[in-house]
Amino acid sequence: MSKELIGAVTYAKGFSASGVRAGIKESGEDIALIVSEVPASAAGLFTTNLIKAAPVNVSQARLPRSGGRAIVANSGNANACTGEQGMADAQKMTSLVSSLLGVDDNDVLVASTGVIGHMLPMDKIASGIEKAVNALSPDGGMSALRGIMTTDTRPKESWASVEINGVEVRIGGIAKGAGMIDPNVATMLSFITTDAAITPELLDLAIRKSADVSYNCLTVDGDTSTNDTVIILANGMSGCRMIDRENSDFEIFSKALDTVTIDLAKQIAADGEGATKIVEVEVVGARSADDCKKIAKTIANSPLVKTALYGSDPNWGRVLAAAGRAGVAFDPNSVDLLFGQIKLVESGAPVPFDQAAANKYLQGQEIIIRVKVGDGPDSARVWTCDFSYDYVKINAEYHT
Amino acid sequence: MSKELIGAVTYAKGFSASGVRAGIKESGEDIALIVSEVPASAAGLFTTNLIKAAPVNVSQARLPRSGGRAIVANSGNANACTGEQGMADAQKMTSLVSSLLGVDDNDVLVASTGVIGHMLPMDKIASGIEKAVNALSPDGGMSALRGIMTTDTRPKESWASVEINGVEVRIGGIAKGAGMIDPNVATMLSFITTDAAITPELLDLAIRKSADVSYNCLTVDGDTSTNDTVIILANGMSGCRMIDRENSDFEIFSKALDTVTIDLAKQIAADGEGATKIVEVEVVGARSADDCKKIAKTIANSPLVKTALYGSDPNWGRVLAAAGRAGVAFDPNSVDLLFGQIKLVESGAPVPFDQAAANKYLQGQEIIIRVKVGDGPDSARVWTCDFSYDYVKINAEYHT
Repeated sequence: MSKELIGAVTYAKGFSASGVRAGIKESGEDIALIVSEVPASAAGLFTTNLIKAAPVNVSQARLPRSGGRAIVANSGNANACTGEQGMADAQKMTSLVSSLLGVDDNDVLVASTGVIGHMLPMDKIASGIEKAVNALSPDGGMSALRGIMTTDTRPKESWASVEINGVEVRIGGIAKGAGMIDPNVATMLSFITTDAAITPELLDLAIRKSADVSYNCLTVDGDTSTNDTVIILANGMSGCRMIDRENSDFEIFSKALDTVTIDLAKQIAADGEGATKIVEVEVVGARSADDCKKIAKTIANSPLVKTALYGSDPNWGRVLAAAGRAGVAFDPNSVDLLFGQIKLVESGAPVPFDQAAANKYLQGQEIIIRVKVGDGPDSARVWTCDFSYDYVKINAEYHT
Repeated sequence: MSKELIGAVTYAKGFSASGVRAGIKESGEDIALIVSEVPASAAGLFTTNLIKAAPVNVSQARLPRSGGRAIVANSGNANACTGEQGMADAQKMTSLVSSLLGVDDNDVLVASTGVIGHMLPMDKIASGIEKAVNALSPDGGMSALRGIMTTDTRPKESWASVEINGVEVRIGGIAKGAGMIDPNVATMLSFITTDAAITPELLDLAIRKSADVSYNCLTVDGDTSTNDTVIILANGMSGCRMIDRENSDFEIFSKALDTVTIDLAKQIAADGEGATKIVEVEVVGARSADDCKKIAKTIANSPLVKTALYGSDPNWGRVLAAAGRAGVAFDPNSVDLLFGQIKLVESGAPVPFDQAAANKYLQGQEIIIRVKVGDGPDSARVWTCDFSYDYVKINAEYHT
């Protein structure tokens, strides 16, 4: 997160990108294009919301696939709740790209983010896409990243490189997302490119596993968007040997992918709308990892917990109360709770603690809440942010 | 809600009450006592949170019962997460009352609200209870009501009278609760007294059914408290004939009880922490009433919906997105959505509407959101409030 910005989506070999202004949102780039020089394995993950935006339906139907060539995305308009016209518009976005690039229409993926229920301004989109194709460059990663931002205050990117049998493999990813984040997946967009050689099936498996420890452990306000989209392209141009089963190469690749997706997820949490601090909630000892995650998410989504954190108040009572309503069985008398290293509750009862130290810890920008609810070996961690005046301001003043 | 305040908990025959200051919270009355002249049928409903406050455990074990005599409650300290000492303290509160009144200890019920994890100041509680017993009066309803308030900005009471076979039966109730409200039941306290003659079993049934259409349809922030308590006492002093089965008398009584509990629930929603308006969410047409309620609650709890309402923005997209993540199956293409009488979505797609009229409607203090998700006959409605700067302020500055 402290790395310099490099335009990570063109970090891997054989990718070019661009971001241009089409005039969809009020200012700045609002169309992003990412292209692989050669056909790439492609996989994706999409919102679990019953109400899916048109671009989600279009991209989801095309993935996983072996010939992926491009991702086109716009910000400022979600193309959600737009009916048949919206579906036609999403398809049109891909066909505009495919005809300009001279590739198969189905090899282009599409994503949108922004306001719901308005038809896309297709004239602007069409000329924007033409501009974007002309602007494609191996140095275009940063402008593509700006093209998908909405209420984000910071660009989010991450990258990693690993050796697979002596060959350097690069992975780079970008993300946008600030509010309406409770992925499984949530309006989070994230696009990842890699020059690894990997089959679509294994790429699909890798991104699913990776999302489970990253994007799906992220929550800002419990609201799941209609548009959440993660797409990964793997074009093989590193020259590494093909990953076609769950062997050690797959593990090396997956581990590197996890560092990228976890880093992106934490950046999204830290930039939650109005956030003044990033919060990690760790839960251990419930009957399963899923149960741990349920408790962690309930704590992470509690407005009372989040406002207490904004106020730097060690209000462990609100944390326990949230844990207790998670719908997961545990023994209230076996609960330990820590803020960072400071223990506040042991075996379900408060213990004396250094109030000044706790306040000081909570005034920091990275808070870890640790909750032990039993002796089981399972655990989960999720990331969120605090809940400030500015969350209300941003969302009350964001007008349709 | 526009009625004058009468001290509703002493509206029915044979009840006295008092509210006194014991010095538990910063200012004002913090102990409330409600007493029936004669043994009363008693029933109650309690939080579904796994972490239950000591007074919840004590009262829940004693209800329903036939000899109920008194309810003692304190504000300023929840007596939650206080271990064995907390249990002993909650029992001590009831035994202090019972010995002063000369009644059986088990006939006294107890409730607490306030900060979690601190031991009750039992010296103050003991002298407060003595003061409260001495202050008991048929005119003490209003001071008892003040004794249970915490962050409430308005006292909440309601009453109704009906004739059962020519005899007037009165029902009066009080409530507190502002944040941390997602009952099933949530820190809501509500105490109801009636001079109806009804068996404990039927009273238990009546209050459960009534809660399903009132308290349990109420949500402020999705947080369920450790302390939620509803207790009803029915002392028979109206002289009406005994209600001992689900006959027409039971129906008359239940209907009157519903008007009281629904009125209290709506007052709680309207006084949600930082609320500037009350919001009713009606959902019709899902596969069951439970499914309708799930959708309604997901909409009502969505921070994005609630901040949009605070901003008076007809952001129907956020409403649909919340409905879509409720975990309930429906056809997105069959959804209609109205704010009041103004239709914004029909068959899943936006329809033209009068923006000025919608903004004007949303600037009102009572908003109704209507969502039809299918053709089924079932429906549900829940109440909530908008989400303002002041919610954050109140909860960030409320220190432990």
